[in-house]
Amino acid sequence: MPATALGIVKRNIERADPAAIRLVSAYGVATLHEAMGRVGLMQPYMRPVIAGAHICGSAVTVLLHPGDNWMLHVVAEQIREGDVVVAALSSECTDGYFGELLATSYRARGARGLIIDAGVRDVKELRSMAFPVWSKAICAKGTVKATVGSVNIPVVCAGALVNPGDVVVADDDGVVVIPSGTARPVAEAAATREANEADKRKRLASGVLGLDMYQMRAPLEQAGLKYID
Amino acid sequence: MPATALGIVKRNIERADPAAIRLVSAYGVATLHEAMGRVGLMQPYMRPVIAGAHICGSAVTVLLHPGDNWMLHVVAEQIREGDVVVAALSSECTDGYFGELLATSYRARGARGLIIDAGVRDVKELRSMAFPVWSKAICAKGTVKATVGSVNIPVVCAGALVNPGDVVVADDDGVVVIPSGTARPVAEAAATREANEADKRKRLASGVLGLDMYQMRAPLEQAGLKYID
Amino acid sequence: MPATALGIVKRNIERADPAAIRLVSAYGVATLHEAMGRVGLMQPYMRPVIAGAHICGSAVTVLLHPGDNWMLHVVAEQIREGDVVVAALSSECTDGYFGELLATSYRARGARGLIIDAGVRDVKELRSMAFPVWSKAICAKGTVKATVGSVNIPVVCAGALVNPGDVVVADDDGVVVIPSGTARPVAEAAATREANEADKRKRLASGVLGLDMYQMRAPLEQAGLKYID
Amino acid sequence: MPATALGIVKRNIERADPAAIRLVSAYGVATLHEAMGRVGLMQPYMRPVIAGAHICGSAVTVLLHPGDNWMLHVVAEQIREGDVVVAALSSECTDGYFGELLATSYRARGARGLIIDAGVRDVKELRSMAFPVWSKAICAKGTVKATVGSVNIPVVCAGALVNPGDVVVADDDGVVVIPSGTARPVAEAAATREANEADKRKRLASGVLGLDMYQMRAPLEQAGLKYID
Amino acid sequence: MPATALGIVKRNIERADPAAIRLVSAYGVATLHEAMGRVGLMQPYMRPVIAGAHICGSAVTVLLHPGDNWMLHVVAEQIREGDVVVAALSSECTDGYFGELLATSYRARGARGLIIDAGVRDVKELRSMAFPVWSKAICAKGTVKATVGSVNIPVVCAGALVNPGDVVVADDDGVVVIPSGTARPVAEAAATREANEADKRKRLASGVLGLDMYQMRAPLEQAGLKYID
Amino acid sequence: MPATALGIVKRNIERADPAAIRLVSAYGVATLHEAMGRVGLMQPYMRPVIAGAHICGSAVTVLLHPGDNWMLHVVAEQIREGDVVVAALSSECTDGYFGELLATSYRARGARGLIIDAGVRDVKELRSMAFPVWSKAICAKGTVKATVGSVNIPVVCAGALVNPGDVVVADDDGVVVIPSGTARPVAEAAATREANEADKRKRLASGVLGLDMYQMRAPLEQAGLKYID
Repeated sequence: MPATALGIVKRNIERADPAAIRLVSAYGVATLHEAMGRVGLMQPYMRPVIAGAHICGSAVTVLLHPGDNWMLHVVAEQIREGDVVVAALSSECTDGYFGELLATSYRARGARGLIIDAGVRDVKELRSMAFPVWSKAICAKGTVKATVGSVNIPVVCAGALVNPGDVVVADDDGVVVIPSGTARPVAEAAATREANEADKRKRLASGVLGLDMYQMRAPLEQAGLKYID
Repeated sequence: MPATALGIVKRNIERADPAAIRLVSAYGVATLHEAMGRVGLMQPYMRPVIAGAHICGSAVTVLLHPGDNWMLHVVAEQIREGDVVVAALSSECTDGYFGELLATSYRARGARGLIIDAGVRDVKELRSMAFPVWSKAICAKGTVKATVGSVNIPVVCAGALVNPGDVVVADDDGVVVIPSGTARPVAEAAATREANEADKRKRLASGVLGLDMYQMRAPLEQAGLKYID
Repeated sequence: MPATALGIVKRNIERADPAAIRLVSAYGVATLHEAMGRVGLMQPYMRPVIAGAHICGSAVTVLLHPGDNWMLHVVAEQIREGDVVVAALSSECTDGYFGELLATSYRARGARGLIIDAGVRDVKELRSMAFPVWSKAICAKGTVKATVGSVNIPVVCAGALVNPGDVVVADDDGVVVIPSGTARPVAEAAATREANEADKRKRLASGVLGLDMYQMRAPLEQAGLKYID
Repeated sequence: MPATALGIVKRNIERADPAAIRLVSAYGVATLHEAMGRVGLMQPYMRPVIAGAHICGSAVTVLLHPGDNWMLHVVAEQIREGDVVVAALSSECTDGYFGELLATSYRARGARGLIIDAGVRDVKELRSMAFPVWSKAICAKGTVKATVGSVNIPVVCAGALVNPGDVVVADDDGVVVIPSGTARPVAEAAATREANEADKRKRLASGVLGLDMYQMRAPLEQAGLKYID
Repeated sequence: MPATALGIVKRNIERADPAAIRLVSAYGVATLHEAMGRVGLMQPYMRPVIAGAHICGSAVTVLLHPGDNWMLHVVAEQIREGDVVVAALSSECTDGYFGELLATSYRARGARGLIIDAGVRDVKELRSMAFPVWSKAICAKGTVKATVGSVNIPVVCAGALVNPGDVVVADDDGVVVIPSGTARPVAEAAATREANEADKRKRLASGVLGLDMYQMRAPLEQAGLKYID
Repeated sequence: MPATALGIVKRNIERADPAAIRLVSAYGVATLHEAMGRVGLMQPYMRPVIAGAHICGSAVTVLLHPGDNWMLHVVAEQIREGDVVVAALSSECTDGYFGELLATSYRARGARGLIIDAGVRDVKELRSMAFPVWSKAICAKGTVKATVGSVNIPVVCAGALVNPGDVVVADDDGVVVIPSGTARPVAEAAATREANEADKRKRLASGVLGLDMYQMRAPLEQAGLKYID
């Protein structure tokens, strides 16, 4: 049988540069996704358990099997201060893989939060603890600990490819994944974008139309738009 | 090729009578939908970005294409004080068509809110601004500006037919569309309904059963209901 | 035609023992579901209208037809102090079966809340009244009163079998159904579980790993897990 | 209460011109939808019960309530030779509204088929009878006959507005609705489109690229497309 | 911990009477469901892998966990000639639990088919073997054998309660569950229904309207239906 | 702005070794997925337009935007004999991106089929041509040609990572992606698996139980399984 990525824990991964993470952390998910060229987003079914939460960190990844959260304990040991755990599933499942006890452990290890393409539970406690989680579902269903998956391999989580060490940012708008090598230029592009936005916001607030501000009238006419009364 | 409704902006539409809108605005969506004879509702997947928001206004409509929000800029120019923008899609899409900048512009133009059968983003900012939006999804995914749609044509939004100038009402229970000609009698029917409800509420709170209050026992028996011990 | 369970109201049901309900009510849904051996949960699409609500009571059941809430009035008469109404559907429907008036009546009859595999409306009012509801949807769509269903028969609600008199517990994590005969031992198992959790929480908070606390290293190795650098 | 469209049967509707229907019937749904300017399609969840079926006719419309097929008997009387029945729902339901007996009746009345935004049953018999149906679901669940809807009013079926007398075309690709006034020009546009396609097909089959045939290379370059090795 | 139903194999179950099964097997799912009083159906997402298949037999039940098909081997030993295996899931999963090898084994044990609220694979081989399966999905994803479930306990499968020994019938319209004690009267009610249908079919085919045949005109008028021109 | 993968066509990719493809092509998707260690599958919503089709080839990849099929023309030029086109979407869309004309072109270029995480149309013609397609939907909705994506970059298609040159295999059970470097050992593992299966099939057909053949009785007992009468 060929070597597959299952049953492997990679201990040494190259984390994203903390300075780059700091730069990126100033921006929201929508801005960063635009700054990257409109790629890197997870599916919109990923929703925050705590409204208003915003996290940014270096990804440690884990691949889980349906109904089995064993590897969430394995990945805990690999967490370093500032990491974000990204948990992908080998097939769709909404069971409650993660709750208060694991959150307590992840926090103690320094994790900034969890992104999981499955369900979580103890959401009242997660809110009390202010431990940020983005998940596909909220579900009380417990899981077993019977089948090994892998830690710190590339995973597809909610439709996005995540490599260990990628910068992961999550807020009310969703979750975006930034390859660690591009974090700095993405932050710069985001900064430029935001700088422009402040001015645009002011003009739009004064009643200027996007049609004029972005000079859309000519291209719209060329594209065939007709005004009638 | 036959004349289709695409690529058209209708500038002069007959808006709903402001006095009728004021009358209608006193009632919730559930009451109005009942007062209309149980029609006019959008699908229940349309959810408020801001819990507790309640808007009522005259519809300006826009038809958008998947992944393309160009026409949201075109419709901005057609907004008058008190309007509600209703955005329909030519096919299903959950991309983030609308965010803080467009909300700033729409507010400056006098819009009371947005109803969109797609995704929106910058929800934290929308909440800060208190700009009311009902949408199908929250999603950071950006859109292009490449294909023209139409403004102020009849559209099907989340399963409901909306003509420009219809009265649109939205609250925590959903979104209802009232043809402008019927707004006044619908408001009257809603008033009658609510008047009845105050009395019913009091009686039910005192322990009277709906079975007796609505005289349901005979029809239930006739329909074959049997009580056993 | 064979006698079916439709069109029947069973008046005398054996309710769960109030003392057992009190014991059970100290625990959350996730804990109780684990204490039962990981069974008894409703599907995770059942969500609370009021975040943070937590109820526990003896089930009165009702089987409804699509678009028809007549039996919600019939079941009202069967409610006793401390009951939880569990409403199942004969086929999927998201219409708004329940609102402020029925909530007023149910509260007057002593109901602790409603679990319904369909939609509800007047959610703003339900929140003002603090009447707890778990539902599949929020929807303003009204229903008719034309077809009889049954009260206090066994029903399948959101994938879970519910017998009248079962203990039903609902919180932010979902809804669990405990056969009345097992309520007491389930509460005991939950107590044991929670006692253990307090200690585990402390150890995990201090940085101890689940890997060590649960002695997972040997079984993981046996299952083939490999560590690489 | 305002006059609503519920509980109305309109007997005299203007049907689409049979000659125009004949012209339209030569084309598939995809071609017609393009010829209309990319509008008029129902949602893709509408699927044929009989693979390969293709129908074209003048719409008689009916609005049904969830779990209630009473109006499918009422609409039967309004069917004329060559009609297609279009059944919309006041809220989502997948119950089996239609089966062999109604199909027998509809065929006897001259119907060419049924388009229904709900479920149907007796699909083995429908296939034996070769009675074409496009539906949202296949489901054995029976319905009641208790609540009136309306016949020959404008309806929204699977996301498309259908007026009585519109031309409805359905095949393996879906269902399209053509306003009766535009049927002839749409057929002409479809003819032009198909004429072009025969030539294009030949060229593409010979290995010519769409890139060259449609002269896309310059606009792609202008849009920023880069070739790398 | 309370005794739960997990980890139990019940060897001796009371199967439905073969003569009653034979009677029931003459009817389709839609007819039987009507004959039962419109109860007992599984959700319509349960679809046949082999179009046109029709099975009827006594249920042996099995409860499976997500991503784990171990118990499908355990249940094989409990199959007797004429049984139908009904597999329920403790939480939603679409993995491919069942394929050609298990089908070979089940056939050798005398099973008439499988009803499974999950995915199956090897569908080409299942079609070659003509082994009838109704499932929620088709999926190549493999499963593990790590966690015990139970055999011949009451289960909820696709929304329907199934007790071991119930009569299960499946065809193109779906899957219905008949409590074994009512199989004979349900068959009789189905016979009566079908007898009526032959006559109705003839009359409808001759152009008689359901409106007249079922004497619906008066109740429709009473319900408020209005005819307009 | 950082260099993103959008707007790029990579012309020279390393295709999978034809001999390895030939080896792999002897096996079905379920077997290959098992042989890989249970990874590499696309989501089960990917379904064949032509039942019974089975293809195997080297992937050329393309990233498309919602409602825009421009890049399907660009990728055509990159197709070599034996390739399988894998089309991913930047966000979910079910529009009909591909039909008869593109199929004609792809066939002329030597493509073995198309895997697309979106909709296709002209399915009747695709079946006549016997051009194999696996898609998320069938939909007549047309697309525009306005926004550039990329060709031969790594993409996530229906939840699976696909690199250009990977071996893609599709049949009735779904679609699996095999990294080109592992194609040969995966084929060998599949061969071993199938060799075992022939013997197992014979034994199971003779009535031997999987319980005995796989020696499951001891581990089941150890896992706590109890037999009762």
